[in-house]
Amino acid sequence: MRAGPSQEDIRRYNLGALLRHVHLGGPISRAELTSRMGLNRSTIMALTSDLTAAGLVREELPRETGRAGRPSLVVRPESARVYVFAFDVGPDRLAVARVGLGGVILDRRETTRERGPFDLDEQAGILAGFARQMRRRTRPDTVCVGAAAAVSGGVRKGDGVIRFGPNLMTEEVPFGEELGRRLGLGLPVSVGNDANLAALAEHSRGVGVAVRDLIYLHGDVGIGGGIIAGGHLLGGHDGYGGEVGHMVVDPGGRACGCGSHGCLEAEVGERALLEAAGRIGTEYPGKEPHGRDAVRAVVDAADRGDIVAQEALSRVGDWLGLGVANLVNIFNPEMVIFGGMLREIYLGSAAQVRSRLALHAMAPQRERLRLRTSALGDDATLVGAAELAFAQVLADPLEVLARASG
Amino acid sequence: MRAGPSQEDIRRYNLGALLRHVHLGGPISRAELTSRMGLNRSTIMALTSDLTAAGLVREELPRETGRAGRPSLVVRPESARVYVFAFDVGPDRLAVARVGLGGVILDRRETTRERGPFDLDEQAGILAGFARQMRRRTRPDTVCVGAAAAVSGGVRKGDGVIRFGPNLMTEEVPFGEELGRRLGLGLPVSVGNDANLAALAEHSRGVGVAVRDLIYLHGDVGIGGGIIAGGHLLGGHDGYGGEVGHMVVDPGGRACGCGSHGCLEAEVGERALLEAAGRIGTEYPGKEPHGRDAVRAVVDAADRGDIVAQEALSRVGDWLGLGVANLVNIFNPEMVIFGGMLREIYLGSAAQVRSRLALHAMAPQRERLRLRTSALGDDATLVGAAELAFAQVLADPLEVLARASG
Repeated sequence: MRAGPSQEDIRRYNLGALLRHVHLGGPISRAELTSRMGLNRSTIMALTSDLTAAGLVREELPRETGRAGRPSLVVRPESARVYVFAFDVGPDRLAVARVGLGGVILDRRETTRERGPFDLDEQAGILAGFARQMRRRTRPDTVCVGAAAAVSGGVRKGDGVIRFGPNLMTEEVPFGEELGRRLGLGLPVSVGNDANLAALAEHSRGVGVAVRDLIYLHGDVGIGGGIIAGGHLLGGHDGYGGEVGHMVVDPGGRACGCGSHGCLEAEVGERALLEAAGRIGTEYPGKEPHGRDAVRAVVDAADRGDIVAQEALSRVGDWLGLGVANLVNIFNPEMVIFGGMLREIYLGSAAQVRSRLALHAMAPQRERLRLRTSALGDDATLVGAAELAFAQVLADPLEVLARASG
Repeated sequence: MRAGPSQEDIRRYNLGALLRHVHLGGPISRAELTSRMGLNRSTIMALTSDLTAAGLVREELPRETGRAGRPSLVVRPESARVYVFAFDVGPDRLAVARVGLGGVILDRRETTRERGPFDLDEQAGILAGFARQMRRRTRPDTVCVGAAAAVSGGVRKGDGVIRFGPNLMTEEVPFGEELGRRLGLGLPVSVGNDANLAALAEHSRGVGVAVRDLIYLHGDVGIGGGIIAGGHLLGGHDGYGGEVGHMVVDPGGRACGCGSHGCLEAEVGERALLEAAGRIGTEYPGKEPHGRDAVRAVVDAADRGDIVAQEALSRVGDWLGLGVANLVNIFNPEMVIFGGMLREIYLGSAAQVRSRLALHAMAPQRERLRLRTSALGDDATLVGAAELAFAQVLADPLEVLARASG
């Protein structure tokens, strides 16, 4: 255990804390900052001056307040000037966003990804190309302070290597390094699991703001999870924490891509639903329906009274509910968030999910539980990647900016 | 987000940090503290002077070092003077320990507990009586700075109410309040789940020291869990986190006391093993073998070649391995620790556990995983309760001591 911080540590911490208020909460008056941070007015003024001089925030007179006396200046993030690149590599899409300080998506590019083996050269090339296009459209005084990517797979802590990505059909790919090289910005590219980053996004800017214990479940081809426990993202020893899709819920169940049987992903994933609904497995392998549209089609059919679709959703909802009940017993979360295609599945099977919860989750663990759908939708992974990219700036605002501008 | 700490906060933090070094690591020289805490010599001297004046530590000349020059003073915890009371309420025992600063068990009392409905008056009376006996044997200058209890059940964060304790046959009991009243020390009694506190103990002083991500599994009648994630105990929203015993591993499985089916506890707990081994369920209900000795007898019989016992252990080991695999996928821990009667079961079925792990846990999550048995054994819950009781002293050493002495 190290000693407490030095004066320089404290200044750095306070600069970061103030910038985080502005970044996450938006424009805020000096008076409000004084009260929320518990610092005196002159310290707040010194901190905002430093951040203004660095070009990270600007101070403005507020609109007419209607109150007498000199109004308190409002501190705003320099969203148009300071930005990061956020990347998303999912089974069905490649996406890039240029995200300004404050979390504003300033620009974006997206393309469909064909399911098939992961070609590092090609995918990194497309993503870096998108980023270059966006950079050419920026004003000369803008500055990129970070870059991060969300990928559908397990990412080793520290070096951005995708260790396993069955739904991207890849493993052991030095993705962060390659994308960083191609971007040519002189910045490292942080890489994280997509569900982990979506959890972070919902916790920072979505339905889970101020919720210290939440579980975000992300569905695409598979089922991923991101867990916030006590306010912190659960990473695990090597960074692979949150792989709830490979929790076995039915030991006698369906084969899973991971080699095991009856994993939550095998019982609840896209393929399980589409097979149960009779939409795949019969003819034309390779041309079978897949992806979000195919899942939506089943939910829509169930809504219209299609019995087979209803039974398929009900079966999948039962397993989803059992999986959620297990997680509720283990984590005692305040909120479970359904994202990706699990949003549709949950909305179509909420009764099953709730009935399984009542059966398998202990009463004290679930009595204050809230079940919610993602507020950020398909942007959750990009928003989470942007937060990962901004993390360094928030930890040490002046140092990072000096490096990026110099 | 609040601002960084004040000078007074930093002094309090540094005093706590220094005391924590001495409390957890034992006697240590000033020179070593200087290097480990990253503070200069005069600051360390000022901090140790304050703690010495408060009677929390003492400084002594070291034994002959063989080196020239003035030796650095060694700082020791005042273990005989400053202590806490640690209580354990398990299905089969009531125990109290008087634990000195530094984690030394100075004195202890223990009695067998008959399985049956929980009588708050009686149990709190026995525990408070033990504590009084021990207090009478202390020197006049000793000071009790805290008290905490480990209980087999779910404890609400904040108020020490046992919300559910099926294995103690109780629920909704204001245990902390009642025990505090009977102790009459003017100190609140913190209460925690036994497996959570045993996890904390193994993390602080046992096999999991310096392991930031670990899962401790505790077996008695049921299966409890305590999870350290990123160095912090996973509490959950209301304090019921870690109830891994009620993760469903076999939806078609045995009925569980919680009302669900196929919980880990139902497939791996004491009753599952003894039934599979043909030792209970046939005659004399109420007089059936139970407890640690009955579990040990099955493991010993299997060791001697008893086929029925071997098959029972193998069956239970399979489910235990599946449960551990699920947790490894979810948490990516560095270590899983088997405690209570799970120590015996794991040692008797390690091959099954490992083979299930290989089948159901993803390779990257388990490649650096270590499986261990509890180092603290039956003392783990008491040691954990003592750490909970010391937590306040370590957070603010001078304030707590002033209050306890005054």
